[in-house]
Amino acid sequence: MKQDNYRESHIKKLLHPASVAVIGASGKRGRVGHIIFKRLLGFNGGLYPVNPKEPEVLGVTTFPSVSDIPFDVDTAIITVSAEKSVDIAEECTRKGIGSIIIVASGFGETGAEGKRLEERLKSIAARYDCRILGPNSLGIFIPETAFDTIFVEHGDKSLAGGGGIAFVTQSGSVGVESLGLAGNTGFGMRAFVGLGNKIDLSELDFLRYFGTDSATDCLAFYIESMASGRVFLEEAKEVSRNKPVIVLKAGRTPAGAHAAASHTGRLAGSDRVVSGAFRQYGLQRAYDDEELCDAARTLSNLPPARGNRVAVLTGAGGFGVMCTDYIESRNPRARLEMAELSGDTVGRIRSMAPPFASCTNPVDLTAGMDNKMFTRTLEALMDDPGADIIICIALFAPPMITDDLVDDIARTVQGSEKPVLVFTEYGPFTEKYLKSFYDKGVIGFSSLHRTVRAARFLVERGNILTFFGGDV
Amino acid sequence: MKQDNYRESHIKKLLHPASVAVIGASGKRGRVGHIIFKRLLGFNGGLYPVNPKEPEVLGVTTFPSVSDIPFDVDTAIITVSAEKSVDIAEECTRKGIGSIIIVASGFGETGAEGKRLEERLKSIAARYDCRILGPNSLGIFIPETAFDTIFVEHGDKSLAGGGGIAFVTQSGSVGVESLGLAGNTGFGMRAFVGLGNKIDLSELDFLRYFGTDSATDCLAFYIESMASGRVFLEEAKEVSRNKPVIVLKAGRTPAGAHAAASHTGRLAGSDRVVSGAFRQYGLQRAYDDEELCDAARTLSNLPPARGNRVAVLTGAGGFGVMCTDYIESRNPRARLEMAELSGDTVGRIRSMAPPFASCTNPVDLTAGMDNKMFTRTLEALMDDPGADIIICIALFAPPMITDDLVDDIARTVQGSEKPVLVFTEYGPFTEKYLKSFYDKGVIGFSSLHRTVRAARFLVERGNILTFFGGDV
Repeated sequence: MKQDNYRESHIKKLLHPASVAVIGASGKRGRVGHIIFKRLLGFNGGLYPVNPKEPEVLGVTTFPSVSDIPFDVDTAIITVSAEKSVDIAEECTRKGIGSIIIVASGFGETGAEGKRLEERLKSIAARYDCRILGPNSLGIFIPETAFDTIFVEHGDKSLAGGGGIAFVTQSGSVGVESLGLAGNTGFGMRAFVGLGNKIDLSELDFLRYFGTDSATDCLAFYIESMASGRVFLEEAKEVSRNKPVIVLKAGRTPAGAHAAASHTGRLAGSDRVVSGAFRQYGLQRAYDDEELCDAARTLSNLPPARGNRVAVLTGAGGFGVMCTDYIESRNPRARLEMAELSGDTVGRIRSMAPPFASCTNPVDLTAGMDNKMFTRTLEALMDDPGADIIICIALFAPPMITDDLVDDIARTVQGSEKPVLVFTEYGPFTEKYLKSFYDKGVIGFSSLHRTVRAARFLVERGNILTFFGGDV
Repeated sequence: MKQDNYRESHIKKLLHPASVAVIGASGKRGRVGHIIFKRLLGFNGGLYPVNPKEPEVLGVTTFPSVSDIPFDVDTAIITVSAEKSVDIAEECTRKGIGSIIIVASGFGETGAEGKRLEERLKSIAARYDCRILGPNSLGIFIPETAFDTIFVEHGDKSLAGGGGIAFVTQSGSVGVESLGLAGNTGFGMRAFVGLGNKIDLSELDFLRYFGTDSATDCLAFYIESMASGRVFLEEAKEVSRNKPVIVLKAGRTPAGAHAAASHTGRLAGSDRVVSGAFRQYGLQRAYDDEELCDAARTLSNLPPARGNRVAVLTGAGGFGVMCTDYIESRNPRARLEMAELSGDTVGRIRSMAPPFASCTNPVDLTAGMDNKMFTRTLEALMDDPGADIIICIALFAPPMITDDLVDDIARTVQGSEKPVLVFTEYGPFTEKYLKSFYDKGVIGFSSLHRTVRAARFLVERGNILTFFGGDV
């Protein structure tokens, strides 16, 4: 893969800086420069607020300008208005700062004047060989180091971390809501990057960076426009040999593409062309933020499926039937089929199941089951070579099922090379249970639709690896 | 429509009894007869616990047998074991009780012996012309009168009431989880009925009953097997001229049908035949409990769409683009298209929108919008004769948007003859916002996928009415 090492080292500093300057840091509540600076007070490194009008911000003495900072600065976060941002970016590069985040909107998306400002930024980036993220960038969030420049509050972001997903979004609002979704039930975020208007750094840079970043095991992109689509596809193909790459390319229908064009000021490609190309290059598609997050948390946390045969375990017959229907329904993503269990497996299940249980697939242990029957049956299904994926319908209503089922399932599936997905639903407690499953390493969803869709992502990933000739 | 008035009056007593006997009422926690009796203590009518071994239950003196009750009893709830239930059912009928609910499982679904018990129940029902719900019935819940015989606890059921949806389910577990979903974000339940094994009362009886019940405005069914499918379809067609009828027929694929057969002991029909018939008879299909609940709360609470042209209002471009893509994507349910706004509408929006807003459909007011701009734009879209449905993407992240937006939208759409759907997402607060919208009469969903799907239900309903030649 083509790599620009100099560029790469700048991106590394952007994501993992030793020192940061916040231009426009302010003591005034509500200001972007206040929110970002306050958030960075917990950052473990040099932190330099810059503000010519406020001598100190939240107890920290400010510098009147970037040039006045007597230390090296890895990354500058510019939180002032569009017009001012351009001059300050140039000042930053003169000081030798190689990585700049520009938060302000009011650039290319707003017309001719904004476009001129963007052109100036582009020439600064080229002239000084510095890297600019944005403008109109939501910022960066690295859970591991608590480096967090995101100025919008949304749930408990700490819930989202602790994993290998690199999440890169062109849209700020989609990014914010995705962070909310990620925090709700646990996610596994390695890094979150808001691209914004992409006058310099684009999805391609982060594809390259996270593609070789050893702590990243899955890449997720929300993209509305792609400047160098062909190069992206070719390099993504290389990345996807080793890591799943999921792309939500908004503007897939002609009307959607038109809407995307007016939103970003660029032209989006035809959906059919995109879809065909994606398949060819081993990318996986998603169609809304919920699906993008579902796919990422599934593919990052579970092994790919070695085949498409699904075994279903339930204690509630109706859910087994609906799940079977979803599995056997035709779907453009990846075909699934119900696994045929071996006689040995059926015998093992029958020996411990309650009377009247249905011991073939879908296995219905009935409301007479208890935790032990459930986990032992799960073990039997995991051992059956005829099943590639297991879907556990984990409902807590049966009288002998206790809350320990979360731990029991987690213990059973730990380290499994066969993916196990959980569906759970429990009125107002659903999210609590899903979170509890996630904390113990089990991936669950709150609707059958989403659970079976997750299985399709795992089969699709297996198909991609097979297509590349590697081991699944 | 064929009506059996005597049968109808029995069903009325079953759902709205003046007096109830609970056979097997018990002071012992955990017992079904304890849970049901405790729940019925709030019931406004005669309540008679029957238990030969416990002289009093929760402070109420028991009767040793049903025959010992010296008062008229409209409905008997039998909570004892399968075998005992049959004899007690006969005793009830001898006392002249016309409506009986049998809770116990262990009947036809468990093999030959259970089937024999069911045959005995059937002959009792025929001989005495009494109506039996179940066996294996989850029970009945009528929010308006707090008549609640459901023995499984699941969230706050009171949240589910206050509307016109009759929800009838063959599966207990699907029923329980649907009640959970209904309570989460508000629903509008008129009546909930757990059919169970249907040895006497079936979906057909409740189709007839709720079809003519003036307080019911939408019927939702979860069904695994249908004994008299043709009659159901023909009568459902008549009902659907006046009220939406949604059916989740599980077992739609061959494997799903096989699973359904082993779960219920009956054969499910071929999916294709079912699907074709449904369309012809004006029924609307759902494929899992979440979709069934989504469809019911949409169709019960909103007017049908007069056409398929959707206008989208957003303050976050990316969501507008994704929503447009969903709208324009092909879908077997009902085709949607993006509305073309009139010049007048575009002008009205432009006059109040922030600079850089996109004033054609999807209308993107950008993060610079405030509540007033949002609701005035919504008004403009509601006034445009070229738009049949409005989707509001209500995100609370834009800095000038306040929580009052919920009230503001509710006030704007109140009494509208044009359906308005809301999509909202807000990390851990999503359900709270959806509930708050619902309390003010606005129907919202937490994913674009579900929101656009709800729009398709409204268009489908409009198409059905047009097909019948009525006014939409």
